Amino acid sequence: MLISKKEVEVRYAETDQMGVVYHANYLVWMELGRTQLIKDLGFSYAQMEKEGVLSPVIDLQIAYKRPLRYGDVATVNTWIDYYDGIKVVYGYEIYTPTGELAIKSTSSHVCVKGDTFRPIRINRLFPEWHNAYENAKKQGEE
Amino acid sequence: MLISKKEVEVRYAETDQMGVVYHANYLVWMELGRTQLIKDLGFSYAQMEKEGVLSPVIDLQIAYKRPLRYGDVATVNTWIDYYDGIKVVYGYEIYTPTGELAIKSTSSHVCVKGDTFRPIRINRLFPEWHNAYENAKKQGEE
Amino acid sequence: MLISKKEVEVRYAETDQMGVVYHANYLVWMELGRTQLIKDLGFSYAQMEKEGVLSPVIDLQIAYKRPLRYGDVATVNTWIDYYDGIKVVYGYEIYTPTGELAIKSTSSHVCVKGDTFRPIRINRLFPEWHNAYENAKKQGEE
Amino acid sequence: MLISKKEVEVRYAETDQMGVVYHANYLVWMELGRTQLIKDLGFSYAQMEKEGVLSPVIDLQIAYKRPLRYGDVATVNTWIDYYDGIKVVYGYEIYTPTGELAIKSTSSHVCVKGDTFRPIRINRLFPEWHNAYENAKKQGEE
Repeated sequence: MLISKKEVEVRYAETDQMGVVYHANYLVWMELGRTQLIKDLGFSYAQMEKEGVLSPVIDLQIAYKRPLRYGDVATVNTWIDYYDGIKVVYGYEIYTPTGELAIKSTSSHVCVKGDTFRPIRINRLFPEWHNAYENAKKQGEE
Repeated sequence: MLISKKEVEVRYAETDQMGVVYHANYLVWMELGRTQLIKDLGFSYAQMEKEGVLSPVIDLQIAYKRPLRYGDVATVNTWIDYYDGIKVVYGYEIYTPTGELAIKSTSSHVCVKGDTFRPIRINRLFPEWHNAYENAKKQGEE
Repeated sequence: MLISKKEVEVRYAETDQMGVVYHANYLVWMELGRTQLIKDLGFSYAQMEKEGVLSPVIDLQIAYKRPLRYGDVATVNTWIDYYDGIKVVYGYEIYTPTGELAIKSTSSHVCVKGDTFRPIRINRLFPEWHNAYENAKKQGEE
Repeated sequence: MLISKKEVEVRYAETDQMGVVYHANYLVWMELGRTQLIKDLGFSYAQMEKEGVLSPVIDLQIAYKRPLRYGDVATVNTWIDYYDGIKVVYGYEIYTPTGELAIKSTSSHVCVKGDTFRPIRINRLFPEWHNAYENAKKQGEE
């Protein structure tokens, strides 16, 4: 299984008055993580959108283990947790600078047409993307 | 069970280039919902923080059913889904202006000391709050 | 001169670790203020965008006088500071709950076509809007 | 004059339904720019806050020349525009990937005590910082 790594510096704007990163901002970092994974697979999400395809989140789970603070550089690990040709579930672990687990989460996505929001079968319309996802799942397995 | 209602106007800043509300922003609305619930119970989260108590999110699940758009006024329904004297789980449903379900979610919280982030037993240190939560759970049941 | 009033409750997400509203968020409130002004004039910015017209900010100035905090309800006053048929400058004052000036700012806007970002003459293409702006400037004058 | 450079990748969360970076988000990038400048001078803003000193924005001006879009990597140039021992004004230019000017802006700051928000004379309390600022102003001059 391919695990992509993305370093993220905490922005001052991302903190709240609790003195830690505001909990909704980790969803933005998860997005940075999966953008990196897509890039590592040789694709570009920005390019996909230009071609009229969107990939909205349909479901998301997140467990907050430890807070991150301004001045920290976090590491976001991202992998493909599940993929069936239509739905893709990304898994994430976000680590503190000292290597402790801060966040464990997943997000589920489908692909839709940008103009109609109708679902698309990734395996049929984007066979190259489909193959890359299948390979990313298998990578490292025997 | 007490269900609090909070109306939220979509802000332009909350949209993204998909033309809908960016998915992380619903976590902010969930917070508006539970702030309203706490207010309806006769308490103030701002006041609680001034007294040195924080209530961080430890777990969150969210299902995205329908998008909301700039110009919409959404309704956030919030209730106490679970409470055991230490942990509280809020349940949320967010509705479109035409009454369709847009978001279904939960968030789990504990209370901690603001200076040490050590957990607090709500039932022991805040008996009034504890009673209000117990009543909010029971309200409407027979 | 017509002055629109919009009340804004500080959101927890809007604070930063300084314990006050993060400075960039006041730009979002300025937008809430001018949306209210446009509504008070009988128009809808959301509707204008659906008709293919955007009104981007081209210039902005903001002076930070006093901080606002979580729990505060601020009042945003908005008026038309300048309008020449092409460019419109909105003026803003944001007040604390005790009526002290927190923010004084202006933002300059033009209207452009949504597909090409080419400028539009408001006075020619939107004569009703033009008249409303002219009246809002004059209102209260002798 | 020392000019610091910071590359910033546009985040999806930073776009709005206009399809470009939402205008308030450039203030966050300006902060990334001045954090980099402070780092280039050998200091850390995170560390300064831990020592109980804050540096709030008191005034800000921004001119929007060209939009940035998702997929773009922008460059933020930051320098010290003015410094008198108490107030510091940072200057910024943000460039598109093709080197066109997108944003031109300034922000004014003072230093205050974190607990009282009372102003601090940088030149007296932080002589090393003062010297670094003086040098950054002069650097490259004859």
